[in-house]
Amino acid sequence: MGNGAFLSFEGIDGSGKSTQARLLAAALRATGRAVTLTREPGGSPGAEEIRRLVLEGDPDRWSPETELLLFTAARRDHLEKTIRPAVARGEVVITDRFADSTRMYQGLTRGNLAAAVDQLHTLMIGVEPDLTFLIDIPPEAGLARATARAGKEMRFEDMGLEVQRRVRDGFLALAAQAPARFRVIDGNRPEAEVAAEVQAVATGWLAGR
Amino acid sequence: MGNGAFLSFEGIDGSGKSTQARLLAAALRATGRAVTLTREPGGSPGAEEIRRLVLEGDPDRWSPETELLLFTAARRDHLEKTIRPAVARGEVVITDRFADSTRMYQGLTRGNLAAAVDQLHTLMIGVEPDLTFLIDIPPEAGLARATARAGKEMRFEDMGLEVQRRVRDGFLALAAQAPARFRVIDGNRPEAEVAAEVQAVATGWLAGR
Repeated sequence: MGNGAFLSFEGIDGSGKSTQARLLAAALRATGRAVTLTREPGGSPGAEEIRRLVLEGDPDRWSPETELLLFTAARRDHLEKTIRPAVARGEVVITDRFADSTRMYQGLTRGNLAAAVDQLHTLMIGVEPDLTFLIDIPPEAGLARATARAGKEMRFEDMGLEVQRRVRDGFLALAAQAPARFRVIDGNRPEAEVAAEVQAVATGWLAGR
Repeated sequence: MGNGAFLSFEGIDGSGKSTQARLLAAALRATGRAVTLTREPGGSPGAEEIRRLVLEGDPDRWSPETELLLFTAARRDHLEKTIRPAVARGEVVITDRFADSTRMYQGLTRGNLAAAVDQLHTLMIGVEPDLTFLIDIPPEAGLARATARAGKEMRFEDMGLEVQRRVRDGFLALAAQAPARFRVIDGNRPEAEVAAEVQAVATGWLAGR
């Protein structure tokens, strides 16, 4: 997409991936790199409006299929308005969640939508991050952290331990299928220790391009 | 989908299709049939919210691809929440626009999206109306009527005569490809005359099922 790089962070709720995305952005900026830190769902003004439509209100007002279409619309906007332009300017784009989250939360846990998720991605999105950090923690630890947080956007966290377990297994299976793109990081350690490993991996990867 | 029937009205802007949809609904109700009159984009509470997101604000804020995904999300919701339940109750559902409008306005006129429109429809919608009335008028007549109307939702009408001509030709080509589903009605006549023909065709078709 240009001279920059497109990195994503994935993981179950409470894995610490948002914190790690922020810490990596700060570390790269400290070395003089231009960084765009973004997140999904959302990440562009239009995609944030779609995010609000999906996440606010009655959790059951959208079917899994309609929700999948709305998330895909938001991703398309995020890609066009935020990710592609920043990569074209030579920046490192770091996104907290991308299509892998949809593969898990819509494809794996909400009805039997896995095939539709993949076909919709191929048809309307088409790109993957250059590098994906999977911050891996035991489901029990993730659930404990996620439920300790308050907030109005607790929908996925509400789904409980069994779902967290399936999503974690699903992420690990995805990573095993695409080892060139994924780096699995043990997130069940002190934040600074995880950050140091992420930063070392990212710096090495960027230098080797 | 059930014991009812699913009818759509299509045509270029200013063709009179909304008026004709309303008149047919009234005529069928007068004979004792239960009718749900609806429209796209919109037609269910969720789809109306998506409609507002697409049609209000800067017309260029969504790319053709994102707009297509949003319209498809709205259609999925409309189908699940309004159309399928009403048909299952045995009602006649009459919608002012359905997927054929997307085939024209997104597939034909906004970039080269025709293949994506069809694939997305197959993947996420899957159904067609049982019967579609194409209210056909010359593009000049449609444009004159449409521009005479005021309102904030003038986006498609703004596209002018050349687009109206392509959309009309596109609708006629669709009708020729699916003659069992389409009835092409000459809309360039007095309203009551058009309504009488629509009503006769609909009544005959419903009786013959």
